[in-house]
Amino acid sequence: MNVAVTPNDIRAAARRIADRVRVTPIVRIAASEFGLSIPNELTLKLELMQHVGSFKPRGAFNRVLAAGAIPTAGLIAASGGNHGAAVAFVARSLGVPAEIFVPSSSPAMKRDRITSLGATVQIVDGLYDDAAAVALQRQFETGALAVHPFEHPDVVAGQGTMSYELEAQMEPGGFDTMLVATGGGGFTAGQAAWFEGRKRIVSVEPVTSQCLHAARLADETVDVTVAGLASDSLGARRLGSVAWSIVRPYVAHSVVVDDEAIRAAQRLLWDRLRLIVEPGGATAFAALLSGAYVPERDERIVVVVCGANCDPATVI
Amino acid sequence: MNVAVTPNDIRAAARRIADRVRVTPIVRIAASEFGLSIPNELTLKLELMQHVGSFKPRGAFNRVLAAGAIPTAGLIAASGGNHGAAVAFVARSLGVPAEIFVPSSSPAMKRDRITSLGATVQIVDGLYDDAAAVALQRQFETGALAVHPFEHPDVVAGQGTMSYELEAQMEPGGFDTMLVATGGGGFTAGQAAWFEGRKRIVSVEPVTSQCLHAARLADETVDVTVAGLASDSLGARRLGSVAWSIVRPYVAHSVVVDDEAIRAAQRLLWDRLRLIVEPGGATAFAALLSGAYVPERDERIVVVVCGANCDPATVI
Repeated sequence: MNVAVTPNDIRAAARRIADRVRVTPIVRIAASEFGLSIPNELTLKLELMQHVGSFKPRGAFNRVLAAGAIPTAGLIAASGGNHGAAVAFVARSLGVPAEIFVPSSSPAMKRDRITSLGATVQIVDGLYDDAAAVALQRQFETGALAVHPFEHPDVVAGQGTMSYELEAQMEPGGFDTMLVATGGGGFTAGQAAWFEGRKRIVSVEPVTSQCLHAARLADETVDVTVAGLASDSLGARRLGSVAWSIVRPYVAHSVVVDDEAIRAAQRLLWDRLRLIVEPGGATAFAALLSGAYVPERDERIVVVVCGANCDPATVI
Repeated sequence: MNVAVTPNDIRAAARRIADRVRVTPIVRIAASEFGLSIPNELTLKLELMQHVGSFKPRGAFNRVLAAGAIPTAGLIAASGGNHGAAVAFVARSLGVPAEIFVPSSSPAMKRDRITSLGATVQIVDGLYDDAAAVALQRQFETGALAVHPFEHPDVVAGQGTMSYELEAQMEPGGFDTMLVATGGGGFTAGQAAWFEGRKRIVSVEPVTSQCLHAARLADETVDVTVAGLASDSLGARRLGSVAWSIVRPYVAHSVVVDDEAIRAAQRLLWDRLRLIVEPGGATAFAALLSGAYVPERDERIVVVVCGANCDPATVI
C-alpha cells in the first residue's frame, strides 16, 4: 500500500489555495495555566478561526481547484456540519452552485449556516450514511463534482496545508508532538503526510467513536459504532482508506477521551482563553488535560483547536 | 507638558512583564470579507486572548512590579470589570492579597470573575466614581498598593507593550494605522507613546462616552457624560492626565461610534471569526465597519480587539 499523499502534494495544495484560506494564528500558553505539570509552553493552533469555523475549507478548496473545470451542476456533498459549510463556502467563493445533503440528526445551527452561505440544503432522514447514500445517487443524476469529507487525496493534501503553514509560523524544530482530533481521518492524515514521521502525531478520538484507534488495533480499517458529544464532527463509521495509507506508517500514537473530558476542555478553553470551541474542536486538548496523553517532561506540544461551530450556551 | 511615557519606558516594561503576560496572536483577514471596499488585508490584534480576557494585565503587572516591595495589605483597586480582574490576577500570580471595590452597576459576570480569582470584592452602591472614592479612603487605612486603571505612567507603559510586541510580530513597516478603543485613555496612550507618531493612531469611543474626543476638541481634559453599551469597560468621565500628555502630541485622529455599530461589530466578529468580543472590545472595529473611520485606498490597518468578557448570549 503506497502513501496516498506526499509533502509535494501538500506544497502544491498550499500554492493552489493560498489566496482562498486564512493563515490561522497560534498562541503559546504556559502548561501550568491548565494545571499541567510539564514545564514548557503549549502551542495552540487556532484553526477554528479558519473560514466558516473549521479546517474544512482547506481540503474542500484543494479538491475543487485541483479538479479543474467545475460541472454546470456545481458541487455536491453530504455532511451534517462543518464539511457542508465548507463546500457551500467554496461554491459561493467560486460562483458555482452547491447542493448539500444533511442528515436530520445534524444540529440546526450547522444546517442554518449551510443555508446562509447560499447552498441548497436537502435534509435526509437518518444519520450521515443515509445522507451520503442519497447524495451519491443524486450525483449520478446531476453530474455535479462530489466533494467527499475525507476519502480523496486532494482533500487530505488540502488539510495537510495546516502543518505546512504551522512550520513556517514556528521557530525551526519548534515542537516535538502534535495532538489532533480524528473523525474520518483526513485531517490527521494530512498532518502526518506532511511530517512523514519528523514529528510525533497523536490522534485523539472520542471513546464513543474511535475508528482510527480501532484500525490501528486491527491493523486494518474496521467499522465502529458512532455516538457521543462530538459525533456531529468526528463521528465516522470507518477510517478512510486514503487516510489509512498515511496513518499506518506515520501515526504510532492514538488515544481516546470520554465526553466528560471533552466538556471540561471546552469549559477551560472558554475560561482561560475566551474561545468557544465545539466538542470535536476541543477533543485533542482533552487528551492532554485528562491525562489520556501524558507528555514526557520536556516534550514540546502543539494542540490543534480545529472547530468552533456550536452554540456558546452549550459550552459555558 | 512633557510626554509622561517614552519608548524606553515601554521597553523596560516589556522586559519586566515578559514572563507574566501572553504574546497575543494576530490574524490577517481580507477587508472584503467584512464588506469593506479597501483592497488590503486587515490585521486584527487579538488582545482579548490576554490573561483574564483583556489587555489590562499588561499595565497592572508593570505598575506592581515597577513599584518594588508590595505592602502586607497587598493591592487595592476600584473597577467594575476588566481592570479589577487583572489586579486580582496579578495578586494571585504574585501571592499577595487584593481588595477590589466594585460599583453595584457592574455586570455580575465580571464581578464573579474577580471573586473567582481570589480577591476580596467590596460592592459599592453607585457607579465607578463612587467605588473609586471608597477605595481611596480604604487605601489610606490599609496602606495597600493602589493600582489605578489608567492614571499612572507605569500602567500606561505596561499597556504600550502591546505595540512593542506587535511590531515584532509583523514584517517591518507592515502597517500604517492602528484603530484602538479608548476608555480612560491609558491603553490608547500606551500605543501612541510607543509609536511617537510613526503610525497613525485612531482613537475610537462610543458616542455616549467620548472623553478623548472631547479633550481634543477642547484642547484640555474635560468631564463628559458616561452611558451606553460599552460603558462597563470604556466609561471614563475624564481622560487621564498621563494619557493626555501623550495623546495631545501623538493622537491626531479620534472618532465616535454608536451602540448599534458596536453591536453589529460584535455580531460580525462572531459570524466571521467565531470570536466572542465584549462591546468595548469591538468598538475599534465598529469604526471601520460603520464608516466612522474611512481609510485611504492603500492604507494598511491594524484593529485592536481588546476584550472578551461578556455573556455570549448578548452577542449572538
